[in-house]
Order: sequence, then structure tokens, then C-alpha cells
Amino acid sequence: MQKISLSTRQREVLVDITSSVQEALRQTGISSGICVLYCPHTTAAITINEGADPSVAHDMVMGLRRLIPGNWDFTHMEGNSDAHIKASLIGPSVTVIIDVGRPVVGTWQMIFFCEFDGPRKREFFVRVQPGEKTG
Amino acid sequence: MQKISLSTRQREVLVDITSSVQEALRQTGISSGICVLYCPHTTAAITINEGADPSVAHDMVMGLRRLIPGNWDFTHMEGNSDAHIKASLIGPSVTVIIDVGRPVVGTWQMIFFCEFDGPRKREFFVRVQPGEKTG
Amino acid sequence: MQKISLSTRQREVLVDITSSVQEALRQTGISSGICVLYCPHTTAAITINEGADPSVAHDMVMGLRRLIPGNWDFTHMEGNSDAHIKASLIGPSVTVIIDVGRPVVGTWQMIFFCEFDGPRKREFFVRVQPGEKTG
Repeated sequence: MQKISLSTRQREVLVDITSSVQEALRQTGISSGICVLYCPHTTAAITINEGADPSVAHDMVMGLRRLIPGNWDFTHMEGNSDAHIKASLIGPSVTVIIDVGRPVVGTWQMIFFCEFDGPRKREFFVRVQPGEKTG
Repeated sequence: MQKISLSTRQREVLVDITSSVQEALRQTGISSGICVLYCPHTTAAITINEGADPSVAHDMVMGLRRLIPGNWDFTHMEGNSDAHIKASLIGPSVTVIIDVGRPVVGTWQMIFFCEFDGPRKREFFVRVQPGEKTG
Repeated sequence: MQKISLSTRQREVLVDITSSVQEALRQTGISSGICVLYCPHTTAAITINEGADPSVAHDMVMGLRRLIPGNWDFTHMEGNSDAHIKASLIGPSVTVIIDVGRPVVGTWQMIFFCEFDGPRKREFFVRVQPGEKTG
């Protein structure tokens, strides 16, 4: 398992982690299998979405804020229940298929660390599971 | 890894892909392990929900449209930011357990490809990871 | 694959299943790999979020109810379409990384079975996939 650190610079922001994941995969030397990405934080998450146009990430952050505003009648005293809900809606883990030594993502897909209660120092975990030998 | 193609016929629709997944699994000959289903598109997703009554899929499409309407103050010029957000809320991948040669889903569960910006030609990927031999 | 049963006592409630998952993992004797948790129900789900302060789980239940109320113009006659939508938003499965014999979750993270249409008798499945031997 590999741990990758990052720093987020706003309260809510999507950070492109695609190249970190590719590098972690490369270090394992595994060319076929699956790759589990895991977020150990309760106000952050991991997703995959369009990375070509940065306005998509912007609209996701804005849309999620509009969906779950911070001013609902929450009881958690830290005042970040909106971030906890967003974290579970997006989800703590994503699994990507590995083939020919690369994550098999779509043309427009990038992997994003979703910060919902930053800025903070964060980390995520990468675990590559080798698949059946086919050679 | 197997690629399965499909065509969606409406802007927003859930397409039952259960039998395609079962057939892909059968072709691997793997009877125990896990099966990762992955959607390489940024305005579509994969989920598992009730398939017995088609009104559930209908209500999911309607409910998600009401949750995130297309007319919010989005900046992405393609005009489909609602579909991108829905894709990340549902998620790009689902992992199913394989036991005795079959996906272990619940009585009422079917696997759905979730189209949020169709109609389009789409595809999804299936990767079966064998489990530990127990024999 | 292991099946774990539980009973939920309210319509909407998050039940901490962390220790059941840890015990299931212990029984496999597998110290490195991944663990797939799967919910075979269509009005329930599995997530990971903060468990230290129970008000977070309370706020999640309340926030999701406010997000998708039961009184929208649904067609499914059972009257629980809100629960079906919540189930797909949270998702039917979560994958956790196993390292040194333990699920590698964050300091504040606990694993929750999310009931959206209880009270009911429920179950979830645990499948541990061993990783590559590194010794």
C-alpha cells in the first residue's frame, strides 16, 4: 500500500491526482489487475470526472454546495456536517481497472481528490491488486 | 478485461446490464472472487438497485433531475454539468462479489448503466479478479 | 464470503458495523489485500464516515431526508422511492484496503450500514481478496 500526501488550498476544491496515481502504479510493476484508491478522511472523498475543462470541477463544487448548504439545522458542533454528507455521497473509495500497465480510464476522465472542508493537509492510499496471469 | 457496448435512447435513463455482466463473468470461468464494473464516461455511471418494478428506475431518474436541475448557474459551456455531478454522485465503479460462479446480488437487485446525457453510444468495462482457492 | 446479519430499529439510521467487519477479516487470516463490503438490499447502503461524534450520523440521516423527501411525485407504489435513491447515492459497496491484518481506515472513520427504509432485518456481505505476497 502506498500513501500519497497533498495539501488543499480552499474549503471546497477538486484536486487532480491522476499523475500521482499513475506513478504509484508504475512503482508496483503490476501491469494487470485493479487499483483501489482510498480516502481516510471524513470530510473528503475521491471521484473520477472530466478533467479537460476545469469548469466541470468548478461546477461540481458549486453544485454540491448548492445541494447541501452549510446552514441547515445540523447538530454536529464542528459546523462541517455539509462536508461529511458530501464525503459519503461521493464516497471514500474508487476502484480502477489496470490493463497493460495503466489505469483504464476514459478519454476525458481524471481522478480527483475532493476536498470539502479545507484547506488542510490530506493523504490518500493506493493499493494495487494483481490480476490473474494470462501469459 | 472485457468491454461491453450499449446504446442509450433518452437523455436520462437507467439501462439494465445485469445479463451482460453475468455473461462476461461466465466467459472468464472464474467462480469465486470479485467483479469490478467501470464506466469510462464522465456523464454516466453504474449502480445497483431494484429492477423488479421499472417505476423505481423511473423515480430515480426523475428524483435526480429534481435534485440537480440543468438550469443552475453552471459555467461549463457544454451545458451538461448536471450530468457530470450526477455521474460522480452515483459513482464510476461498482464492485460485486462473485461466489459459486455468480454475482452475489440481492433478490431484487439489478445492475444498471446510468445515462445522464444521452442518447449516446456508450461502453463499460468488466474485470474479474479471482479469489483465494479454497478447494 | 461471509454474511453478517443485523436488525435496524428506525426508518432511517446509520448502524456502526466496524467491529463486525474487523471480526470477519480476522476469521479469514488474510493480512494484506482488500476487503469488499456489499449491501444486497435496494433501500440500504454502506458508507464510511465519522463515528467519534454520533451527531455526524444524525446529521447525515437528517440531511439526506431533507435532500430527498418522501413526498415528491414518485410513481413506485411502495412509497419508498426516496430510500431507493439514497441507496444509489451512497452506493451498494465499499472497498477497504487491508494492511498488517487490519482495515486501513482513518482515525475518525467507522463503517456504517445505512438503513433508509427500516426497521428491518438486514444483512451484508464481506469478501476479502488477498494481495500479492511481499515476504
